[in-house]
Amino acid sequence: MQRTAEVICVGTELLLGDILNSNAQFLAQELARLGIAHYHQTVVGDNPERIRQVVAIAQSRAQLLIFTGGLGPTPDDLTHETLASCFGVPLVEHPEILATIHEKFVRRGIPMAPSNRTQALLPLGAEVLTNSSGTAPGIIWQPQPPDNRELTILTFPGVPTEMKMMWRHVAVPYLQAHGWSQQTLHSRMLKFWGISESALAEQVQPMLASTNPTVAPYANWGEVKLRIAAVADSHDEAERLIEPMAQKIRAIAPDYYYGCDQDTLASVVGEMLLAQNATLAIAESCTGGGIGSQITEIPGSSAYFVGGVIAYDNRVKIQQLGVETTVLERQGAVSAAVAAQMAQGVKQRLGATWGLSITGIAGPDGGTPDKPVGLVYIGVAGPQGVQTFEHSLGSGRGRQWVRQLCASHGLNHLRLALRQLPTPGR
Amino acid sequence: MQRTAEVICVGTELLLGDILNSNAQFLAQELARLGIAHYHQTVVGDNPERIRQVVAIAQSRAQLLIFTGGLGPTPDDLTHETLASCFGVPLVEHPEILATIHEKFVRRGIPMAPSNRTQALLPLGAEVLTNSSGTAPGIIWQPQPPDNRELTILTFPGVPTEMKMMWRHVAVPYLQAHGWSQQTLHSRMLKFWGISESALAEQVQPMLASTNPTVAPYANWGEVKLRIAAVADSHDEAERLIEPMAQKIRAIAPDYYYGCDQDTLASVVGEMLLAQNATLAIAESCTGGGIGSQITEIPGSSAYFVGGVIAYDNRVKIQQLGVETTVLERQGAVSAAVAAQMAQGVKQRLGATWGLSITGIAGPDGGTPDKPVGLVYIGVAGPQGVQTFEHSLGSGRGRQWVRQLCASHGLNHLRLALRQLPTPGR
Repeated sequence: MQRTAEVICVGTELLLGDILNSNAQFLAQELARLGIAHYHQTVVGDNPERIRQVVAIAQSRAQLLIFTGGLGPTPDDLTHETLASCFGVPLVEHPEILATIHEKFVRRGIPMAPSNRTQALLPLGAEVLTNSSGTAPGIIWQPQPPDNRELTILTFPGVPTEMKMMWRHVAVPYLQAHGWSQQTLHSRMLKFWGISESALAEQVQPMLASTNPTVAPYANWGEVKLRIAAVADSHDEAERLIEPMAQKIRAIAPDYYYGCDQDTLASVVGEMLLAQNATLAIAESCTGGGIGSQITEIPGSSAYFVGGVIAYDNRVKIQQLGVETTVLERQGAVSAAVAAQMAQGVKQRLGATWGLSITGIAGPDGGTPDKPVGLVYIGVAGPQGVQTFEHSLGSGRGRQWVRQLCASHGLNHLRLALRQLPTPGR
Repeated sequence: MQRTAEVICVGTELLLGDILNSNAQFLAQELARLGIAHYHQTVVGDNPERIRQVVAIAQSRAQLLIFTGGLGPTPDDLTHETLASCFGVPLVEHPEILATIHEKFVRRGIPMAPSNRTQALLPLGAEVLTNSSGTAPGIIWQPQPPDNRELTILTFPGVPTEMKMMWRHVAVPYLQAHGWSQQTLHSRMLKFWGISESALAEQVQPMLASTNPTVAPYANWGEVKLRIAAVADSHDEAERLIEPMAQKIRAIAPDYYYGCDQDTLASVVGEMLLAQNATLAIAESCTGGGIGSQITEIPGSSAYFVGGVIAYDNRVKIQQLGVETTVLERQGAVSAAVAAQMAQGVKQRLGATWGLSITGIAGPDGGTPDKPVGLVYIGVAGPQGVQTFEHSLGSGRGRQWVRQLCASHGLNHLRLALRQLPTPGR
């Protein structure tokens, strides 16, 4: 019989809609990647009786129960306590956990609250699933259900960063060692910018019918992706199924394809700058620092990113970037001419090889019939001069949409400009 | 007996983690707002047998089953077919739906696929839940379970925009007309910065036992929140229950409390600057534009935000902000002295009332025994001089954690500094 997993997310905040259940998505992706079948996800509130009922249902249809949430120090964090009672065992205090929790508080220089002590209580017989970044550990537990059926329980805190780290470092090795992961589903996400989902789907229509690997389109915030997924006995074999398909697809849309999986427009631009021994400075108006923030998300970006000027006020455009007052007055702050002077100004003043600028109207106010909300100008200044680009992103999808999209457009224009320059031999 | 709802999301794509279950969050928020109790959410794949089992469980514990997904034209869209078989009724074709579907294809100028015809098949006895924007209608259905218990089923497509429109325009009026929404749940989220979840929970311990309103703590990315939720006959009455509790809690942690609901540290700082007729300039190193991005997320921020300098490279700190080379050499870029000069420099050069600066080691590399990853200095320059603050954010939670947390710490220090200045009379 195939063994299956069930994801159980505990937290009244999920039932109130206060938070989005990103943990369920992460665990679903991971289970798929490991080839572990997973047919149900359940969300239940911080209520011991209902948690108990959910456990009873889940153990009748799955052999691996993965819990998130309810491990905190407050009285409504009940996951371990309830699990212990489900299987008729007491909670026992783990002095080594208590010591670790205590030490973390000492290091942060704040006193440990007595309630944190409850986080050292685990069901009798459960192993500790170490949480290296937070205070609440989880458990790995094979309890003894009355009917002796096979059952493994993993628990994680609800905090996504902690849950993910514990999953990767402790749970995955455990599951692999215990025969949970045999066939594996492996996938690659190809990423495109500047083409619509339906236009790309039309171009790759024949591939969408493929069964192993499968090809499926996704779109999000203007980015279009194609997910190629293969099931195989090993990661390498899955890769051998994926690679020819990826090559075929890339050949169909070479200008729009920019990278895959963890790649972002910012990371791809960073690699190109690094390869060309070049540096970048940015001048942001409507994005207010958003492009810089994306670029500096990448570890090691200091090798090519010099810095930038957030020129929100026109005086900053004039004084810090050398934009001419007459150009500002005649063309307006949102114009190709100002974008060009911003890009050239920041490149020159900060001493970079490339300058990227953005000026636009993010809304909701500030639009005019001539220059409506969503109008954006991008400047790319490089060794061979400056280019400008105009985009009309509309007002219908709001301020964050305009800001996010023009940042991506800016990075993409820089990517295309960098691609035209030959990489120096090295 | 209190009637309750269960949300059931159908779709193998959810079990593969291909999409985030934002529908569940939306419905959860809506049910809470309408005061409809909701204790379980279930996700199940496009599999008739498993959907049937989920329906059996759900109807044993809830009286209102809300389905999303599985209404499309492809063979794996099985929700209506399976529901019909659960309750032993046939599917019947609705000519008026078929006509509407056909018409939509004509309007789009594309031929209707034969598979779209299945979307006009609904369980016998179900009413149509009109979908004005897509092709797949949902149903409103009171089937007859064998034991004659009360049961209402609503189905929606998985596409969020269609689901939301149908929910608002059809389902909500239906539920209100059928006595589902009498009492309303209203809540307020109080937000705190600079105190741990457990420390705050301990201070408000007696309030956590309150039943109407309830008080529950949450923590995310260093921010701690307390949600006060009241059930009442009207919004105003709920507010009357919430307000005294909110006042009590604010009085307990006045320095840590910064706002509620949609407030962010950036929006609160913005309101204070506006009230004081003051302006802000920022100098960011390790956050790379992240603070500027947060500040300019707020519509109208141009009234108080002048701009900033992203001083990633030390040369930018020297040339654009006037940081002294000797100070950089002796103290290092990550030091209180450099943070102070960055804050003063940007305040003065960009001509703002306030200057906020951040310099730190976001990691993963770049740490030393003296200056480990996570060490951050913040400078706040204002009318009465400059202050600096040191934070040790650790390396365990990664680069984004350090960047996000120090941005929030920076905004919070600015908030506290702004609070010390009297608001000018106006």
